[in-house]
This record gives sequence, structure tokens and C-alpha cells, in this order.
Amino acid sequence: MIDKIYHQLIVSCQARAGEPLRDSGIIAKMAEAAVMGGAAAIRAAGVEDILAIKRAVSVPVIGLIKREYPDSDIYITPTKREVEELLSTDCEMIAIDATSRRRPGGEEVKELLALAHHHRRLVLADVATFEEAKAAQDLGFDAVATTMAGYTAYTRPLPGPDFRLLRRMVRRLFIPVIAEGRIYDTRDLRKVLKIGPHAVAIGTAITRPHVITERFLRCFKEGKYGKSRQKFEK
Amino acid sequence: MIDKIYHQLIVSCQARAGEPLRDSGIIAKMAEAAVMGGAAAIRAAGVEDILAIKRAVSVPVIGLIKREYPDSDIYITPTKREVEELLSTDCEMIAIDATSRRRPGGEEVKELLALAHHHRRLVLADVATFEEAKAAQDLGFDAVATTMAGYTAYTRPLPGPDFRLLRRMVRRLFIPVIAEGRIYDTRDLRKVLKIGPHAVAIGTAITRPHVITERFLRCFKEGKYGKSRQKFEK
Repeated sequence: MIDKIYHQLIVSCQARAGEPLRDSGIIAKMAEAAVMGGAAAIRAAGVEDILAIKRAVSVPVIGLIKREYPDSDIYITPTKREVEELLSTDCEMIAIDATSRRRPGGEEVKELLALAHHHRRLVLADVATFEEAKAAQDLGFDAVATTMAGYTAYTRPLPGPDFRLLRRMVRRLFIPVIAEGRIYDTRDLRKVLKIGPHAVAIGTAITRPHVITERFLRCFKEGKYGKSRQKFEK
Repeated sequence: MIDKIYHQLIVSCQARAGEPLRDSGIIAKMAEAAVMGGAAAIRAAGVEDILAIKRAVSVPVIGLIKREYPDSDIYITPTKREVEELLSTDCEMIAIDATSRRRPGGEEVKELLALAHHHRRLVLADVATFEEAKAAQDLGFDAVATTMAGYTAYTRPLPGPDFRLLRRMVRRLFIPVIAEGRIYDTRDLRKVLKIGPHAVAIGTAITRPHVITERFLRCFKEGKYGKSRQKFEK
């Protein structure tokens, strides 16, 4: 699987509760479209979506479960319970939040990693900082992704990808680094590729039409347009 | 309707035969997502899709029918037959190819326009050149769009929007001008908005995940990435 995604595009296919596309059948169709477009792997959340995607396409799947707990800010595969659930699918890789934040119930990330490895699944560390990426490598994670950069209390949300973090990770780690987070257009992607990650994951810009629409709409509010007018002349 | 789309975003929701999302139910969900994201109108092809979209959302719909005829290159609402079919839906506006090319069966665009107007539908002219836009205005079209620019034998396919054509149309026509075609990212959109069209229509970049995936993937083939390598150092 690690070889299969080398210098390839991973497409994240997710929809949250309340979104029009929140349906495992539609998510599987989205995955089909991504694979038709050339995606080498799919990242997906929840057992139902992963099972539907596995039926629809034959590329590797990075599985995760998003669940909130009252005693932790971690929501991507936070506890062993979510790892167990993912083990019920045949996803090739499991993504786990590997930030330094306290986990629900005081569990330790190495316990989740050991559980997944025991069942021969590859494990991807979603991190927010270089220190967390390094710690994930030291713990034995199979790969690391910049997914959480900008989404923790201690990392600032940049408008685009965190190129600095990515560069540091690519330069200084020996495990594969996956660039993920806020890659919105081909300009962002070209900059990311110059840094040379093992693979790139894109979600929103491909599979979340309402967020793409919102993003385009914000341009309309940037002032100039409100004032521009069509000239009336024949 | 013309007022409702003033300085607004129209999202085109279409999928071709053979594409994973080719399903009127899914297209309607896409339209819902677009409206949730802020779209003020939907552009859609085919009676079945238009009906499904009309059931799902309450914004105005620009309807068209794509059909190929052996004796013409025109495929967007080419004949009165497609206009009749669209009249069976309650789409507020009908988009018609108004290029200067010969129509199937030698029909004239003014016949299609008259038929739609007779049934009190607004009519949008999809054109490729300024001359065609001007002719559409003279014929009495309610609005004109740059949709066909780059998609006829006599217009070159630019990598992005045809800003020059759009500028000329916005400056010199008095009917509303809709910018449409190859607006892939917010940079393209900002440039379009500076020109000041009545409205902007975006399709592929929002609702065609397999084409977006392909577009991102092309960046991987641009040379540098194939050579870049992760450095192996601890």
C-alpha cells in the first residue's frame, strides 16, 4: 500500500451529518468518480462508508472514525473502540490523531497503534506539529500526515497548506509523509509537490461541493464586485 | 429571476452518461449542496434532472438539453423539440446554443427563442464570440453567457476563462452577461468579478469530482515531482 500511493493522489471522500451528500451510497459514488479521475487511494470516515467504498472501488482505503468525547479534543479515531470498529472493515490503513493532546479516558496513542499493528493494519499519524510527527515516527507509525495542522488550539489556521511544517517533515523524517489539509487549487498543489511528500491527500476541493461553493462565494464579498456595474451602452 | 441572480453565483450540476454521479437523485443532492453553499440558481441538463432539482431546491433553474444531431455541431438545446421538452418542466430560464453555426434541420435560433418566449420563459444565449453575443441581444435574448467560447471550431480553447470576450460583452451589451466556462479556482473568479458580469456560473470545479481529480493529477506529471525525493535522514 505504501508503494501504491508513492507520488500519488489520495482523495478524501467524506460528508458530515446534515450535509446533502451524507449517504454511504453517494460517498461510494464519489470514491468511484475520484478513482475514475485517477485517485490511487481513498480516505474515508466511518464503517458504513468504508464498506460501501470497498464494494465500489479496488484502490486502498485509509479508514478513520470521527467521534467526539467530552474529556478530549481528539476526534479522529480517538480510542481503541474506534480502532476495533475499523478492524471490522478491510481498510488497508487506519488514520489516528497522533497529536500530543490528552486522549479520551487517558488512553495512550501507542495502545491504539499496537492494536492496529497487531491486526496487521498500517497506521497513519495525523499530526499538527513537527514534534508530534517525530514522536509518531519514534512510536512506529507507518506514515504521517499534516492533517491536524491548524486544527488544534496550539497551531494557527493558515489560509492554505502548512508548507513550512510539510517541508520540515519531508526533510527530517524517514517514514513517508502525506501532505494533507487546505490544498484548494492547482497552485497550492504545485507548491506542495515541490516539497516532495510521499503522497498528497485532497478532500474538500474535490468532494465537498457546498464548501467549494462557499469558498467561491466569499470572493463575491471582497468589496470590488459589489461596486462594479455593467455599463449600459449599445 | 434576472434580479435574483444579480451579482450571484449560478452552479451548474451535470453528469454525463457513464459517470458515477449520473443519477438524477444524486444531481439533485448536488444542487442542494450548492444551494446550501450559497448558489442563487442552478444550471442543469435534461428533463429528469431539472424535475429532481426543482423538487429539492427552490432557487431558479436554467434548463437545457444536450443532444447530438448528425447534421450539426450544436448540442445545447439544438432544436424546437428540446425547447418543447424543457417547457414541460418549470425551469425559469432556458439556455440555447446561439452560436452562428448551422442548426439541425436548418432551424433558426429565432424560432426556438420565439417558442420559449411564447411560453413566458426567459432565454439565455450560450455563445462563443462577441458577434454572436451581439446578434443574440439583437434577436431579443434575455441574457447571454460565454459558455461556448473555446468549444467551437473557430474559437481557441484557453486554459482558463476567456476574459477578453467577457470584458467586451460586459462593456458593449445592455442585456445581462453571465460569465461561464473554465472558472477553476478563486483566482480565476476574482479576475472575472473585476470585469463585472451580471452573474457567474461555475460547474466542473464544484460538481464534477472526477474532472477535478484529473486536473489535480495533471500537476503530478509536470516533471519536477517525478524527480523530487524524500530525503532519508533521521
